[in-house]
Amino acid sequence: MSTDHEILELPDFALEQGGTLRPARLAYKTYGRLNADRTNAVLFPTWFAGDHRSNEWLIGEDRALDPRKYFVIVPNLFGNGVSSSPSNTPAPHDAADFPNVTIRDNVRAQHVLVTEHLGIERLELVLGCSMGALQTYQWAVTHPEMVARALPFCGAPKTSPHNVVFIESLRATLTLDAAYRDGRYEAPPLAGIRAFSRVYAGWGFSQAFYGEETYRQLGFTTLEEFLTGFWEANFIDQDANDLLAMLWTWRHADVSATPGMDGDIKRALGSITAETLALPAEKDLYFPPEDEIRAAQHIPGGRVRVIPGIWGHLTGGGANPADAAFIDGAVRDLLATGTDGRG
Amino acid sequence: MSTDHEILELPDFALEQGGTLRPARLAYKTYGRLNADRTNAVLFPTWFAGDHRSNEWLIGEDRALDPRKYFVIVPNLFGNGVSSSPSNTPAPHDAADFPNVTIRDNVRAQHVLVTEHLGIERLELVLGCSMGALQTYQWAVTHPEMVARALPFCGAPKTSPHNVVFIESLRATLTLDAAYRDGRYEAPPLAGIRAFSRVYAGWGFSQAFYGEETYRQLGFTTLEEFLTGFWEANFIDQDANDLLAMLWTWRHADVSATPGMDGDIKRALGSITAETLALPAEKDLYFPPEDEIRAAQHIPGGRVRVIPGIWGHLTGGGANPADAAFIDGAVRDLLATGTDGRG
Repeated sequence: MSTDHEILELPDFALEQGGTLRPARLAYKTYGRLNADRTNAVLFPTWFAGDHRSNEWLIGEDRALDPRKYFVIVPNLFGNGVSSSPSNTPAPHDAADFPNVTIRDNVRAQHVLVTEHLGIERLELVLGCSMGALQTYQWAVTHPEMVARALPFCGAPKTSPHNVVFIESLRATLTLDAAYRDGRYEAPPLAGIRAFSRVYAGWGFSQAFYGEETYRQLGFTTLEEFLTGFWEANFIDQDANDLLAMLWTWRHADVSATPGMDGDIKRALGSITAETLALPAEKDLYFPPEDEIRAAQHIPGGRVRVIPGIWGHLTGGGANPADAAFIDGAVRDLLATGTDGRG
Repeated sequence: MSTDHEILELPDFALEQGGTLRPARLAYKTYGRLNADRTNAVLFPTWFAGDHRSNEWLIGEDRALDPRKYFVIVPNLFGNGVSSSPSNTPAPHDAADFPNVTIRDNVRAQHVLVTEHLGIERLELVLGCSMGALQTYQWAVTHPEMVARALPFCGAPKTSPHNVVFIESLRATLTLDAAYRDGRYEAPPLAGIRAFSRVYAGWGFSQAFYGEETYRQLGFTTLEEFLTGFWEANFIDQDANDLLAMLWTWRHADVSATPGMDGDIKRALGSITAETLALPAEKDLYFPPEDEIRAAQHIPGGRVRVIPGIWGHLTGGGANPADAAFIDGAVRDLLATGTDGRG
C-alpha cells in the first residue's frame, strides 16, 4: 500500500445509489505546482485496480505532462484500497457492506478536491485510461464549463453490454471461491483471485500479442510464467471486495444516466464542450475502437486517433514504449490545441 | 443423451499420450447412403460440447450436404459424453482418470470407422466447425491420399497461444468450484459450470453482437436472460470431467506435432493435397481470421473466405440464417470443385 499521497476527507458523502460514507476518503497525489493564475491544472484519474502510481509513466520532465509546467492531480478511484474501499472502511460500511459507488460519485468527490480544496476553477486537461477514461467522459459531461480538454484512452463513455459480460465473468469467477464466503472472508480467496487473473489474461492483450510471444518484452519467457508472474502478480494482493466494488462501478458507468440527460447518450455526448481527443487501442478486446469512434461522432469537434498495434487493452498501460510515446504525443498535441474560449 | 446413433467399438485403442481404452467407443451417425462405387462419402466431425445432432443444420435435402446425394458420416468427439468420455467409461479410466485424448486419436479412430468398418478409401469432403475444424486439418495432414476436399470453419490447424489462455481460463473457473473435488465429485459442480458459462459467453459472440442485442434473434429479451437461457443452458447438463477432457484435446491441437512433421507447421500445411477452403468468421474472438489466413498461405492452393458479420465464433453454429447460407454455399462451391486427381 502506497503512503506517498494525501487524503481529502469528505464528511457525510452521500452516494448516488444510496448510503453515506462518513467520511469518504479521497486519496490523491499531485505533481508540479499550481501556477499563480491557476491555469495549469490537469486531472488524471486512475484505472481499475490501479492507484496514483499507475499513472506516473505518463508524467515527467520528458513527457507532455511535465511537472515543471503542469500541476497534475491524480485522484484514486474509490474501491482501489487507497481511497475509501471495502478493505479500509470501518463498520457499518466495511467489506461486503461497502455501498455501491458510481463513476459520478468519483467525479463529485474529485470536484470537491479540485474546486474547494485546491481552488481550481478550470482544468486544462482531464485524461485517463480505461476506468480513468470512464471518469474523463463523465467529467466532460457533468462539468463542461470546467474541462477545457479531454483525452480518454482505452475507454468509453458507457460500459458496453459485451464489456458487462466480461465484467460479469470476472465477478462470477472470483465469487465462486468457497473462501469468498459472500464477502465475509477471513483469509483472502486466493484461488478465486488466481482464476480471476486467468480470465482477465485473455482479455487484457490481443490474440496477436500472445501469438507473437510479445510478453517476452516484459521479461517473461513462457506463457505460463506470464500468466502467473504478470497477471496473478497484478491481482493477488488486491482485496477481493475491493475488486468487486470497482467492478460494480465499472459495470454501471454511463454518461447518459447523468441527471438531465434522460438516458440519451447522444444528448450527453452532445453536451460536451471540451476539445476531446479519444485514443482507443486498435486491438482492445473489451473497449474496442468502435465504441469511441461512435461516441466521437456525437461530441462537437470530437476526434479519435486509434493507437495502432497488438497490445490490446494494455496499450494504455504504459509498458510498451511505442504506445507510451503515441499517447504522450497525443497529450502534447491536445495541450497545444486552443479551446476557443470553450470549456 | 442421444440414442439415435451407432457405436463402433475399437478394442485396445492405444492413445498417443499413453493409456489404452479397452475398448474405445466411437459414436457416429450417418445420413444418406454410400453409393456403389463408394465415391460420395463426406466426414463431418463435431465441435466442443456438441454431438452428431449439432451438425444436422448443415445436412438436408435443401443443403449442399444432401443425403440423397452424399453419404455423410458424423463421428462424435471423444469426451463429448456419447463417444468414450470420462462420464461413460468404466474404471480404471472413469471420471478424473480418463486419459488424455488428442485430435490425432480422434482422427485415428475415425479412420478405422471410415476404412475398415465402412469400406471407404476416399472422402469427397472433410469439414467441421471449431474443434471439428481442428479435426479437419488433422485429417488433411495425416491422410492426404484420402481427403479430396477440406472445409474447416471457425477453426485453425493449431490452437493458438491466446486460445490456450482462453481455454485455461475456462479450466481454472470450472475447477475452482469446491464441489468439483479434483474431478471426484458426487454431485455435479453446477456453480462451476455456471461460472464457466459466463466466461464462455464473452468469447462466443462478438462485441457488436451484444451491443446490438442480436440475442433477440435467438428469442431472448435481456442480456441476463441470454446468459442463463442460452449459455448456462448449453453447458449445465454437461459432465464437468467431459468438458475438461475436451478442453485438453482442444488445447493440444497442433498438426505440426504429426509424426514426420518435426513440429514444423509450414511443412505440415505444405503436405496437404486436399482442395482446401477455410471459412473463418470475421469477428471470431478465439479463432480469429488471421489464424486461417496465415495457414492457407502454406497450403498448396489453399483458399479462405471470411464469413462476414457480428456473430463471432458462433457464426459457425448454424443459428444465424445468413451465416448458415454462407457456409452452405461454400460447401456447395467446394464440392463442385474438381480435384485434379489429387487427394
